[in-house]
Amino acid sequence: MSRIITLMTDFGTKDGYVGTMKGVILGINPHCTLVDITHEITPQGVFEGALVLGSTYRCFPRGSVHLAVVDPGVGTQREALVVEAEGYYFVGPDNGLFTWIYRRGEVKQVVGIRSRDFLPHSVSQTFHGRDIFAPTAGHLSLGRKPELFGARLDQWCEIDIPEPRVTRKGLTGEVIHIDWFGNVITNLPRDLLEPLADRGPLQIHIKGKRISGLKAAYAEAREGELMAILDSFDLLEISLPGARAGDALRAVKGDKVELFCPCGIT
Amino acid sequence: MSRIITLMTDFGTKDGYVGTMKGVILGINPHCTLVDITHEITPQGVFEGALVLGSTYRCFPRGSVHLAVVDPGVGTQREALVVEAEGYYFVGPDNGLFTWIYRRGEVKQVVGIRSRDFLPHSVSQTFHGRDIFAPTAGHLSLGRKPELFGARLDQWCEIDIPEPRVTRKGLTGEVIHIDWFGNVITNLPRDLLEPLADRGPLQIHIKGKRISGLKAAYAEAREGELMAILDSFDLLEISLPGARAGDALRAVKGDKVELFCPCGIT
Amino acid sequence: MSRIITLMTDFGTKDGYVGTMKGVILGINPHCTLVDITHEITPQGVFEGALVLGSTYRCFPRGSVHLAVVDPGVGTQREALVVEAEGYYFVGPDNGLFTWIYRRGEVKQVVGIRSRDFLPHSVSQTFHGRDIFAPTAGHLSLGRKPELFGARLDQWCEIDIPEPRVTRKGLTGEVIHIDWFGNVITNLPRDLLEPLADRGPLQIHIKGKRISGLKAAYAEAREGELMAILDSFDLLEISLPGARAGDALRAVKGDKVELFCPCGIT
Repeated sequence: MSRIITLMTDFGTKDGYVGTMKGVILGINPHCTLVDITHEITPQGVFEGALVLGSTYRCFPRGSVHLAVVDPGVGTQREALVVEAEGYYFVGPDNGLFTWIYRRGEVKQVVGIRSRDFLPHSVSQTFHGRDIFAPTAGHLSLGRKPELFGARLDQWCEIDIPEPRVTRKGLTGEVIHIDWFGNVITNLPRDLLEPLADRGPLQIHIKGKRISGLKAAYAEAREGELMAILDSFDLLEISLPGARAGDALRAVKGDKVELFCPCGIT
Repeated sequence: MSRIITLMTDFGTKDGYVGTMKGVILGINPHCTLVDITHEITPQGVFEGALVLGSTYRCFPRGSVHLAVVDPGVGTQREALVVEAEGYYFVGPDNGLFTWIYRRGEVKQVVGIRSRDFLPHSVSQTFHGRDIFAPTAGHLSLGRKPELFGARLDQWCEIDIPEPRVTRKGLTGEVIHIDWFGNVITNLPRDLLEPLADRGPLQIHIKGKRISGLKAAYAEAREGELMAILDSFDLLEISLPGARAGDALRAVKGDKVELFCPCGIT
Repeated sequence: MSRIITLMTDFGTKDGYVGTMKGVILGINPHCTLVDITHEITPQGVFEGALVLGSTYRCFPRGSVHLAVVDPGVGTQREALVVEAEGYYFVGPDNGLFTWIYRRGEVKQVVGIRSRDFLPHSVSQTFHGRDIFAPTAGHLSLGRKPELFGARLDQWCEIDIPEPRVTRKGLTGEVIHIDWFGNVITNLPRDLLEPLADRGPLQIHIKGKRISGLKAAYAEAREGELMAILDSFDLLEISLPGARAGDALRAVKGDKVELFCPCGIT
């Protein structure tokens, strides 16, 4: 039986919003284990939320319930979802927040929360985190099946995930996230890069700067020297020891990253 | 028996102060469930703390212990309290932090912590969170009765809660909080507003701006358009889709909000 | 058997890094209690991390596992450690993060994590928090002995802890931390100060300002008046009621603090 509930929102931590959701959950299942992923997703940042959730959920034991609320459409007709995939349960709005989960192809079912059986008598139009998603997560953690909450859907929202492009001279990708350390994370994955790196030192161009080769560890670069590395999520990352690469490059999500293989691709 | 302890402070999360309190609690009751409400109350912001606590505590199951430390008077003669109300226990300084709880009228007892039985041998004058409030919360969570900690008081501190005023043309209230999203939360409650809204479109004046009518959901307004909504705590809130209303209006706590009903009040 | 695991990192809370570590731990020991000390140590701030950990760990019950990751050398040859001291277990990189623990002189053993028995098949060079430290902490919390993880070491890294100096006229120390409230924390300890304070009012010089005498509680000073106090960790602290002493003084770690005893030291 599932006992772990993770929470990810854009609610911040200075108000009582997250505490409110936890109170609701503990009223339903006082024995669950609550774990914060983050509550500092940029407000209404569905892409960022989808990325952080997509890179985190698999570290938890199967059976965990992942509650995710980044919900600019709260109070509109958008569906409220329970997704069952890879042995996990996901609860949140139908706005693409679960795109990375859908793309991995092991979705068992997507359920639209329609039943009122597990919801409070009065549901607000402004705080579904409290009134719909938290109660649903609480009941799922007690072992209730997703199908009890509503109807199985055969379509749902996805967001665009920018795909890397193979070019004649290498790869073109883009910045998808700047992390807490200021590291610039791109959408260029290890499995595309490594075959190229085996054939000679890669050249990486970003924001007018050139970086040669990949480092294996952060400490291999000198302080103040931009470096490229395959990070712990197997993506190409630009880092700047002792400082914030994202600030130094003035990089933002969507900036182009080009990777050149001196031998060409063929 | 109570097992849940919530924590709310102005200690921030960058130092070890909150961890220290949790360590003390777990040394007393290793099986309790600790839940953070927030630790980012503005330093010494007793009003803000009282408001956040007052809007959150009821979401937790009865029997929960709410530990709240916003305590500019630490080390002075102010009392340290255990309050029992509505089936909950509250622990913190006697400076008005529990005003919303008192006002709801179901206070069973207010106890001044005078006994040293449950406190460490040495009590500092600078960190009662660690030395008085955390141990008290830990012992309450084990089921010990409030009266064991000291003497029942018949008076205690309250802070001023600004009350909305009914005018000839509608209501006058004020800003009481700006939340993480920049939403501007006022003291105008649903039960005063709804009877007026039924009689025609309301006009809201704040900081020289006029807003017409209430929206039912955040997504009903256009990006960049100021909107008014009854929020999830049943208060009138000014919001700005895609941006921060508080910043756009340069609103601060205490700013006046006027609400006009075109038909007048009578 | 140990059940509590504390976490302290410089990972921030906006990404999924901390959640990832917690997921790994809960996959190993779903019944442990996870407590955050802080994740806002200044990036790569080993001294700050060592100080926060050193002032916090003893508040937790014996048997607790303290997981600490501030790790600029991740992926290099630096050791990964399990330290057993004072009945606690510490897990983290060998870079001085545990210096305060070593100095207290009750170290039972320091083990270099060499065994792969408890680690995932693939260990990255960029995220030992996930791949080495979290699994080790999880297994320690199940009661596994430190010696199972590798070889006992007879040397390890320590950082310089600035020591106060006794002068002819009093004491010279320095700023070691600025906390969330802006309080300026020095390395001048109660046991050196109190004998001097007993002999007459102390004079404290910092950044060109003079402060006379020690207060016993924060509320004893007037708003806007710099004050000195022995804080809850028994260190001399400079505080500014209603404002941030650190900002007002433009104090940073390392700034000199001089304490004069009008009667001299002898």
